[in-house]
Amino acid sequence: MNACLINGQALSALAISDRAIAYGDGVFETIAVKQGVMPLWAAHYQRLIDACSQLDLPLPNEAVLLKEIDALKGKQVQAVIKIIITRGSGERGYCPPTHPQTRRIVQCLPWPEIPQAYYTEGVSVIYCKTPVSQNTQLAGIKHLNRLDNVLASKECDEKHSAEGLMCDSLERVIGGTKSNIFYVREGRLYTPLLNQAGVLGIMRAQVLLQAQALNINTHIVPISRAALNEADEIFLTNSLIGIWPVTQLMDKKFPIGKLTQQFLNRLD
Amino acid sequence: MNACLINGQALSALAISDRAIAYGDGVFETIAVKQGVMPLWAAHYQRLIDACSQLDLPLPNEAVLLKEIDALKGKQVQAVIKIIITRGSGERGYCPPTHPQTRRIVQCLPWPEIPQAYYTEGVSVIYCKTPVSQNTQLAGIKHLNRLDNVLASKECDEKHSAEGLMCDSLERVIGGTKSNIFYVREGRLYTPLLNQAGVLGIMRAQVLLQAQALNINTHIVPISRAALNEADEIFLTNSLIGIWPVTQLMDKKFPIGKLTQQFLNRLD
Repeated sequence: MNACLINGQALSALAISDRAIAYGDGVFETIAVKQGVMPLWAAHYQRLIDACSQLDLPLPNEAVLLKEIDALKGKQVQAVIKIIITRGSGERGYCPPTHPQTRRIVQCLPWPEIPQAYYTEGVSVIYCKTPVSQNTQLAGIKHLNRLDNVLASKECDEKHSAEGLMCDSLERVIGGTKSNIFYVREGRLYTPLLNQAGVLGIMRAQVLLQAQALNINTHIVPISRAALNEADEIFLTNSLIGIWPVTQLMDKKFPIGKLTQQFLNRLD
Repeated sequence: MNACLINGQALSALAISDRAIAYGDGVFETIAVKQGVMPLWAAHYQRLIDACSQLDLPLPNEAVLLKEIDALKGKQVQAVIKIIITRGSGERGYCPPTHPQTRRIVQCLPWPEIPQAYYTEGVSVIYCKTPVSQNTQLAGIKHLNRLDNVLASKECDEKHSAEGLMCDSLERVIGGTKSNIFYVREGRLYTPLLNQAGVLGIMRAQVLLQAQALNINTHIVPISRAALNEADEIFLTNSLIGIWPVTQLMDKKFPIGKLTQQFLNRLD
């Protein structure tokens, strides 16, 4: 049984009137606990605040969240903390209550098993047929409307692929089903512009910060499949998995390049 | 307290591990009960089956659903039946279980209060700033990823507008926040093509059937704001509200036209 607190109470079920169930009306964060602490807490909390602001949800209190997380994780060295903020209960109908009473769901979940080879030998990825959902007002936000990621993940599972890439309606690469993508070409670092779709990942931001520190020429731009295919190096990021070098994309092989290795070493 | 059955059991809360909460991984139907019966049941059930098929969800059994609906609505003359089919519980992560155990949520909810004037004098509608979410694989389906409708509804509420129109990234009109849109121009009937976004409404299908019976020239095509602005008549459809004539769109007035009146009379 996984531990769960809903508004501070140990509960395993959510009121059926909650708008997360009806409309996916809420946001979430998935946070790595390593050596008993959450090294990227500040970034996750900031993103949660930004997401709530963008969706006009009341902001969760940091001290309350931290207290609840602490109570759930106890002395666990490695775990995953998942926070969901919903717009709470409402009547039937899309229109949200004027003064929503949000629900704060905090869970402590097991650390995922990831083969060590994913880091040392890289992963093989496919292009998913499921397109990414596009909406300028929802782009970047880690909200609860994730059917596109679900369907794309299913494709990966069926093809025994560690991860799959999702594209928008113009065949621009947006990211993996659960990760952001970077590629290196002639010493420059590229990652997709996420103003139409995708999630602004916490590890993506870490890579961009490191690239700044390392004085690497960085481009946040729309990325075509053709451009990605000409990459010297490709890697994926996610705050739980860290960095996965991509050594195969569909039929084409890629090496684990120098820059990828550098980020792997720095962001372990 | 509204009556609710989850997989046949009287429950008011959903297991926190349900994928509807985490990812909006499910579909729904909202069905009118009039004079104690559901006149459009067959169409709703067919759409539910189609939606489940498209999302690869196990299909709900019709007899079981009808039995549960009957138990909930009892002798109520007018009510709303809401069905949600979720992909059930799963581990953390987008990837769905190989053999999902879906949850069937059936609720009987109060009939909404709708001013009679909406039918006799028409409604005034705005263009929402929130764009509609676009995804060719999710278009048409009444799934649980409805944050775009939620945000657009909020705009309508704030502007005291009965309904608001949502457009895609190319400024094509897709529909209302909770309705489909039709317009009439020189005796021809137009409604948006929903291959990129929107929901294939049950009342929309009824209007299209009636238009066939009436031998009305009908066009299911992409619709620009400019084209809509040149309409002779505009109306909205939804299986609960039926048909609402639009008599004002932003600053422009429209009459309740002859065809709109004809559909109003036929689809009451």
